[in-house]
Amino acid sequence: MYSIKELQDIINQSVENEKIGGEPRGLYEPIEYTLQSGGKRIRPALVLMACNLFTDHIDEAIRPAIGLEIFHNFTLLHDDIMDHADIRRGLATVHKKWDENTAILSGDAMFIKAYEYFLDCKSPAFRDILKVFNQTALEVCEGQQYDMEFEKRQEVSEQEYIRMIELKTSVLLAAALKIGALIGGAEKPEADLLYEFGRNIGLAFQLQDDLLDVYGDENVFGKQIGGDIVSNKKTFLLIKAKELANNEKREILESWLQNKEADRIEKVKAVTSIYNKIKIKETTQNRILELTQKALDYLDQINVENEKKIELKNLAGKLINRNS
Amino acid sequence: MYSIKELQDIINQSVENEKIGGEPRGLYEPIEYTLQSGGKRIRPALVLMACNLFTDHIDEAIRPAIGLEIFHNFTLLHDDIMDHADIRRGLATVHKKWDENTAILSGDAMFIKAYEYFLDCKSPAFRDILKVFNQTALEVCEGQQYDMEFEKRQEVSEQEYIRMIELKTSVLLAAALKIGALIGGAEKPEADLLYEFGRNIGLAFQLQDDLLDVYGDENVFGKQIGGDIVSNKKTFLLIKAKELANNEKREILESWLQNKEADRIEKVKAVTSIYNKIKIKETTQNRILELTQKALDYLDQINVENEKKIELKNLAGKLINRNS
Repeated sequence: MYSIKELQDIINQSVENEKIGGEPRGLYEPIEYTLQSGGKRIRPALVLMACNLFTDHIDEAIRPAIGLEIFHNFTLLHDDIMDHADIRRGLATVHKKWDENTAILSGDAMFIKAYEYFLDCKSPAFRDILKVFNQTALEVCEGQQYDMEFEKRQEVSEQEYIRMIELKTSVLLAAALKIGALIGGAEKPEADLLYEFGRNIGLAFQLQDDLLDVYGDENVFGKQIGGDIVSNKKTFLLIKAKELANNEKREILESWLQNKEADRIEKVKAVTSIYNKIKIKETTQNRILELTQKALDYLDQINVENEKKIELKNLAGKLINRNS
Repeated sequence: MYSIKELQDIINQSVENEKIGGEPRGLYEPIEYTLQSGGKRIRPALVLMACNLFTDHIDEAIRPAIGLEIFHNFTLLHDDIMDHADIRRGLATVHKKWDENTAILSGDAMFIKAYEYFLDCKSPAFRDILKVFNQTALEVCEGQQYDMEFEKRQEVSEQEYIRMIELKTSVLLAAALKIGALIGGAEKPEADLLYEFGRNIGLAFQLQDDLLDVYGDENVFGKQIGGDIVSNKKTFLLIKAKELANNEKREILESWLQNKEADRIEKVKAVTSIYNKIKIKETTQNRILELTQKALDYLDQINVENEKKIELKNLAGKLINRNS
């Protein structure tokens, strides 16, 4: 059984040693640039961890794990074009460093490369693994589409928001686990339990993200606190605040949302103050705990010795208690 | 054995009856719009024809054939963003009718949908089929990258140009045939011969395209004659003209290429006149014939009764003798 540290090392070495290369350089350089830019590389680690739950022979999972990381980075590359983001992981985004056409086309090639890594997988569950990957990839696109549509809408319900983050974030974490399990030889019901574990952890992970944007420690979080408040982003916190506020507070909240000339610091302070009064932090933390509990219940049901599950439990704890 | 007309009908019905559907509509509507916009649908027809060379049971080839058509349409969708094209098949392009973000994301989803159709394929050659598709998809991206890079370059050699059109156009026609053959139960060497047939026909097809842009009949061709000349596009005709012209004619040609205020009609007339003097039409036609002959030689080597090859021979003839 590998520790998460060992698996992370395997992943980091594999990704960094990987020769994506080839001609024309104009197509492949942006791919290499993106893959070398780091990131947490949680998804490939999840593939290996899930595989390792069922077997010590994790070699067969390494290339699909890298494939999943390449896919994830492809989605960031295209999302950054759509969101007009200039910086990713402290570096210029591809469409800024090169141009938009390069970002579109290198993104496409990157996505194809992701499949290439999957096609090397020798598992008997090959077809099922590809189907999970493919379905998930489609869902991630659906999530991004909802995310963009929600930006233009006045109101988004809690349910709609949860469904959006499920598609945009959770399903890929869930799929990483399911794919790893299938490669490790798990039966489908066990793989599905891991999927549910990942889906719930993924939701908790995203809510934690929403929370950190308001309540994080700026020095640890790595970006300015309150970005979501300034941009009126319909996060779990804002959606719940609108729901839970009394009329008076809701009106104050709405006036801040509609005030386009508001001073950044004042707005963040005022909206956070409303959040504090109606205990949005606690509401969000409770939801994170509920989701985590649900996730752990699924993990418990998996027919594998408890000690093998410790690393996944630890990771789940870290992801939702993180400060950055 | 099916006639090409029968296979085209099967393809048209299959594509048009296909429910891509689903939510969010904003993601899937542009995909349906693109797939319903017609086009020659040559690639899926080639999949079925190649399959039909080896078996009368072509059902298993239909979904991969549609997948290939979806993939081809995805490349057009993203290419149209990169080329700032407003019109495709007489309709507004997706990034014009909707917006650029929609075109990027719906394109991505469309590409994933293409894989979905392949993943339904029950052939024992499943993995090989996917590898051919994936490798080809990557090559098409490489071709598009070269195409964009060549636009910014002063000089492109004949060899570079041929390699570009091979990647951008030919390999997909070749892959369509190889995939169809593999589904039909062909051995790999037979499938490879069909690939070579398709690759050479694809090159001839693209050279015919270059030729029609200068020498086509405007009423039949469907677009203004001389578009490539006006935009200084480095086609086979221009590359060969620069190579074959004497110093005097090359200088005249260069002066037209550098004249940014040239009258459209005058420029087309002058450049065509140089082409005529150095027999560029004949040079191109000869190359098309050579490529076609090479293609047919590969087809001849395939171990299948000659009468079964008639439809493919006819199609090859039609593609390179077309007027539009």
